[in-house]
Amino acid sequence: MGKTILDYDTVALDDEDNALVIIDQTKLPERIEILHLHTAEEIWNAIYLLQVRGAPAIGVAAGYGIYLLAKSIDTEDFDEFYEKFCAYKSYLDASRPTAVNLSWALNRMEQTLLRAAKDEGRTVKEIKEILKQESIAIQEEDIAICKAIGEHGLALVKPGDGILTHCNAGKLAASRYGTATAPIYLGQERGYGFHVYADETRPLLQGARLTAFELQSAGVDVTLICDHMSGMIMKQGRVQAVFVGCDRVAANGDTANKIGTSVVATVAKRYGVPFYVCAPTSTIDWETPTGADIVIEERKPEEVTEMWYASRMAPEGVKVFNPAFDVTDADLITGIVTEYGVARYPYTESLAQIRRKMKSDKGE
Amino acid sequence: MGKTILDYDTVALDDEDNALVIIDQTKLPERIEILHLHTAEEIWNAIYLLQVRGAPAIGVAAGYGIYLLAKSIDTEDFDEFYEKFCAYKSYLDASRPTAVNLSWALNRMEQTLLRAAKDEGRTVKEIKEILKQESIAIQEEDIAICKAIGEHGLALVKPGDGILTHCNAGKLAASRYGTATAPIYLGQERGYGFHVYADETRPLLQGARLTAFELQSAGVDVTLICDHMSGMIMKQGRVQAVFVGCDRVAANGDTANKIGTSVVATVAKRYGVPFYVCAPTSTIDWETPTGADIVIEERKPEEVTEMWYASRMAPEGVKVFNPAFDVTDADLITGIVTEYGVARYPYTESLAQIRRKMKSDKGE
Repeated sequence: MGKTILDYDTVALDDEDNALVIIDQTKLPERIEILHLHTAEEIWNAIYLLQVRGAPAIGVAAGYGIYLLAKSIDTEDFDEFYEKFCAYKSYLDASRPTAVNLSWALNRMEQTLLRAAKDEGRTVKEIKEILKQESIAIQEEDIAICKAIGEHGLALVKPGDGILTHCNAGKLAASRYGTATAPIYLGQERGYGFHVYADETRPLLQGARLTAFELQSAGVDVTLICDHMSGMIMKQGRVQAVFVGCDRVAANGDTANKIGTSVVATVAKRYGVPFYVCAPTSTIDWETPTGADIVIEERKPEEVTEMWYASRMAPEGVKVFNPAFDVTDADLITGIVTEYGVARYPYTESLAQIRRKMKSDKGE
Repeated sequence: MGKTILDYDTVALDDEDNALVIIDQTKLPERIEILHLHTAEEIWNAIYLLQVRGAPAIGVAAGYGIYLLAKSIDTEDFDEFYEKFCAYKSYLDASRPTAVNLSWALNRMEQTLLRAAKDEGRTVKEIKEILKQESIAIQEEDIAICKAIGEHGLALVKPGDGILTHCNAGKLAASRYGTATAPIYLGQERGYGFHVYADETRPLLQGARLTAFELQSAGVDVTLICDHMSGMIMKQGRVQAVFVGCDRVAANGDTANKIGTSVVATVAKRYGVPFYVCAPTSTIDWETPTGADIVIEERKPEEVTEMWYASRMAPEGVKVFNPAFDVTDADLITGIVTEYGVARYPYTESLAQIRRKMKSDKGE
């Protein structure tokens, strides 16, 4: 047996090589290809092209990425350093508008930089080392967060349950356990014997290429379905819970996630299947009141008409609407599973409670 | 400009060549390839492989097909003729279990044969001619039925409306106007300016390959979407009605149609968009009380994991569930549009009324 996907980190820092190291997720499941990214352009492209994807993984990549770019700034002058840092930050920030973790991680790195410079009077050289430690901390926290989400999620299901997931909020999207897959992997370690259904997730097929792949690698009983087969399997009683990830949760619980998530939630409600969003608190956007305020990225028509195919699958020149995300209304969501516990509808209060726990935990 | 799809009949009889002539729908939209089918095996394969597809088109093809096979039976002896006819009929009947029009057309041809033989005492030669006329009548009636469905459907929408359709219940699935597309084509002739959204319809992509193609050929404003984008466009208010076809309607209105139809219906209900099934009465199965009694065809995993793709899109050996149809519960359906008018929920009575109209129209 060759190496499986479980033998690699999705995102890693190679500080000696000045490289952000990622698994190229666009090449899966055909082959495991490792990329070493050095320049700002390479990092921007990797995020834009979804070579690295998934909200937490993008956050981790952004942390390592901005650290490496900061490290490359050849000056001892703080003002020059900070100006160039900000230019890199704005550049990277534009690669995926919907992914809140991208700006979250970049802002966190900037705050760290400013704290070190202004409060502690550190030199540029010292600041670079502090940024390195901060970027490593982002990944270590992500691992702990995924595990905590897994524990809270696992308490919501029982051995032998059928679980449906949409897109990939797995190991490949985050660190170690993933988010939506964290209850599944923890359950797998503890002999729960889940039956997992993975939506293939058109047009980019993250479910078929990534989720089915990583769960199968881990020995999980996984069945691949087309996205709109969810109605039938729920009606047949094959599914006892849905777990999905998210790109951004508004303060009222409205959740932006991969296109189609709102459809899964609507169908789950119809058939009485609980629908859970697994959300590290870093994906909760307390400044965004509702889903109506979330900007949805539209992507290229070719992803629908040509990508992956041996030949064109739609007539030349046909109009295509290709939104990357949709917003699931809060009332369709049974619970939002964070590392601080499960928030329940209505979310304005329950998420505020989670925020208070988070702040007290951080001693804020 | 070369010929467009509108220049061809989906299914036609070439009696001189003893051929059932069809457009190979598996080759669209890349090229328009016309097949001349002569043997029982060729006809069986064309139906099984979806080279001809769509409930009404399958009915028309079955009528012409069984006529041509009957014509080829080289005997003047009625008992021998009838025995061979029945063998061909059973054979063709097994090619698509869910398509009620297949058995409907084959049974109609057998009844015609028996009436001619038993009631009218016709010779085998005469019976063959009667079967030919009957098969032509099936197609002519189909054209009239589609037009009537179009008129009833058009009364349910208004100029400028957005219309969503799933799979292909278009010209390619039926004769001339199609069923679900009949209101669209009639509206197009009358300057309604509809904005049509076509679900791509995984895994066989009938929406992308066929519906988008035929509507675009006809100059209709059509936008292609992935199946689970329906939630978003309905939430955005872009869609004022859904029209879909059907493979089989149970007596209580439960409707078997392309996988995913029940999901579209669930989402439409959520967003208050009326959901209409366009159903020639030949697809209403009065003997099947509810959708629970409809057998759902499961198809090969490769349709999900490999078909159309330049390379495999899912890990080797992954389990796949690939049902071809699902059943939409009657309570999700706003109206069933037949050639005799629109039935409304609850359907047991309203469909029975349609049946009475149909019988009185036929003088039964």
